[in-house]
Amino acid sequence: MAFGWIDEQADARRRAGLLRTLLPRPARTRLLDLAGNDYLGLARHPEVVEGAAAAARTWGAGATGSRLVTGTTELHSTLERELADFCGAEAALVFSSGYAANLAAVTALAPHGSLIVSDAGNHASLIDGCRLARGTVQVIGHGDTEGARKALGTHDGPAVLVCDTVFSVDGDLAPLAGYAAACREHGAGLIVDDAHGLGVVGAGGRGAAHAAGLVGADDVVVTATLSKSLGSQGGVVLGPARVVHHLVNAARTFVFDTGLAPAAAGAALAALRLLRREPWRADRVREVAAQLHARLTAAGLDAVRPQAAVVSVRAPSARAAVDWAAACRRAGLAVGCFRPPSVPDGVSRLRVTARADLTPAQIDHAVRVIGDTRP
Amino acid sequence: MAFGWIDEQADARRRAGLLRTLLPRPARTRLLDLAGNDYLGLARHPEVVEGAAAAARTWGAGATGSRLVTGTTELHSTLERELADFCGAEAALVFSSGYAANLAAVTALAPHGSLIVSDAGNHASLIDGCRLARGTVQVIGHGDTEGARKALGTHDGPAVLVCDTVFSVDGDLAPLAGYAAACREHGAGLIVDDAHGLGVVGAGGRGAAHAAGLVGADDVVVTATLSKSLGSQGGVVLGPARVVHHLVNAARTFVFDTGLAPAAAGAALAALRLLRREPWRADRVREVAAQLHARLTAAGLDAVRPQAAVVSVRAPSARAAVDWAAACRRAGLAVGCFRPPSVPDGVSRLRVTARADLTPAQIDHAVRVIGDTRP
Repeated sequence: MAFGWIDEQADARRRAGLLRTLLPRPARTRLLDLAGNDYLGLARHPEVVEGAAAAARTWGAGATGSRLVTGTTELHSTLERELADFCGAEAALVFSSGYAANLAAVTALAPHGSLIVSDAGNHASLIDGCRLARGTVQVIGHGDTEGARKALGTHDGPAVLVCDTVFSVDGDLAPLAGYAAACREHGAGLIVDDAHGLGVVGAGGRGAAHAAGLVGADDVVVTATLSKSLGSQGGVVLGPARVVHHLVNAARTFVFDTGLAPAAAGAALAALRLLRREPWRADRVREVAAQLHARLTAAGLDAVRPQAAVVSVRAPSARAAVDWAAACRRAGLAVGCFRPPSVPDGVSRLRVTARADLTPAQIDHAVRVIGDTRP
Repeated sequence: MAFGWIDEQADARRRAGLLRTLLPRPARTRLLDLAGNDYLGLARHPEVVEGAAAAARTWGAGATGSRLVTGTTELHSTLERELADFCGAEAALVFSSGYAANLAAVTALAPHGSLIVSDAGNHASLIDGCRLARGTVQVIGHGDTEGARKALGTHDGPAVLVCDTVFSVDGDLAPLAGYAAACREHGAGLIVDDAHGLGVVGAGGRGAAHAAGLVGADDVVVTATLSKSLGSQGGVVLGPARVVHHLVNAARTFVFDTGLAPAAAGAALAALRLLRREPWRADRVREVAAQLHARLTAAGLDAVRPQAAVVSVRAPSARAAVDWAAACRRAGLAVGCFRPPSVPDGVSRLRVTARADLTPAQIDHAVRVIGDTRP
């Protein structure tokens, strides 16, 4: 039977305790959410919600076509201009998702004959970008600047180094200065995904690439999502105007995709303006993450020191991680649970995300529940 | 210099008259839009717009995480249930774009050792799905059922045939019955992208796959977008529940992407319910397309008989197509302009899309302008 083989895979997943199912959430819940990526607590902010509603009313519920046909509204242009301005880039291009933005940046900037050096900890979307691109891929160790230098040194012709700025599993920072130096030694471009840095890291939440002094350089391209700190949906590529013009012409996930829905563009724009006006939100989320880490560590748990909003807590096994997250949920706390194949190192963990809008009582509750339910 | 090579590509595009730039549109315009894919005219329908706004208010501006973590709301589940029910499938899974849905379906259903037979006219997202999948790809001629049969006959092990139902460039239908028969002879699965069929073709707009009696079969998977007839943003995979469960576990563009924004889900749900209540919209858009074709042909133009909403009008060259579309625009009519590399056969054309809400006066205007501005 066609597709018969998938039943065997499902059985194997079930036996290994790795079968995933969807858990629809209600609109109102007493569950405390430390599992999502709404780092600044803006997804439900009245201004952001109203940004979505007003955009749908003004521009319609959909973009109606690809960006090169009817899918570019003046709202998209405004959002792109303000995102570029906030992050310090010359130009920006918005996509329907961060996944699409990463596929676009990597495939359009790594042509046939080029080399792509890829950090082993990279997000799935960067990895898929590497697989789709015509260039040759060389994977280096996680954070291995020396490996990057060596790989780039072996290649003549165009080359790029591709990495997350903040890795989503452990919340650790890439060695951006080292990677940038390696790229410049060899005339290579640097493509960094700041999905977990934007809104959290750097002055006023301008992101990890901005904090490292990389944005605005003619050899650096930054991608990010509009669906985490900005509480909406979509992705963006930030970089030199000539790179953005190139993507408009050459990036298949730009040319052949319907434009981002106006409501998502409007929400992201409202969130961006709010963040500009209230830069304390970025400081606050890092402070909450540091508190969570300090108190979980004091409780004897194996937590990784956060460099952004994510606090990763190691679990002894995939099964233990699942049971632990389930016990937290029964006690009123939603936390993420990362296990194979979503973890590059095979170590399962809880993924606890700080939010700028958590109260001291909520932080107390979270620490108590995670400690009390430990395996 | 890093990225220096893109300037040469930009120069080559400029010299060939193929350089594309974005043209932001205002919220209100007197331009008649026959360029977008808002086939049923629902993107600005008050119920659809209100569906977006209400969903943002109830659920927030963003889904806040991936579908397996916090990104599945009860709204997503309702939309999936109603989409499956409308199209006659056992289950449905919603994505942030049709592009992501196609990448998911092809990559997750064509594992290492499998064969993927791909129609030469397929959309970029299906082609990228083929490139990303672990299976071996064999491209067959456009609509070549005999070629499909031959390709499938050479392979042992899992196989899928992948095609659009309605091809976006010429608006022609795939030989779905022939492709399905070829698949069944060889125990292969069939994956069809009904992006341009849903809402337009079949009883009440249930799509081309439904019209061909394919939906609900255990060896057929249908993908579609929420951004064309449903006036919103997003994509969907419709198929057997076991296939949908497999995608939940194995499809990277599902697992590692933020969930579709509630506003987009709410708008698509409102549009779907409207289409159920007003099935004449699907009949009307086909009728408008037939009228446009008949009158453009009567005016001596080389137009392809439409099998859905798209009317394709051949132009003598890429440059002539661009000039023609620009002349239409100056005369108050927006039409699409397809030219290399977006056309598989190298023939440039205007792409005129029918809409269910066009008035007789608007149809007159469109036919007159296209005729008067011909190269």
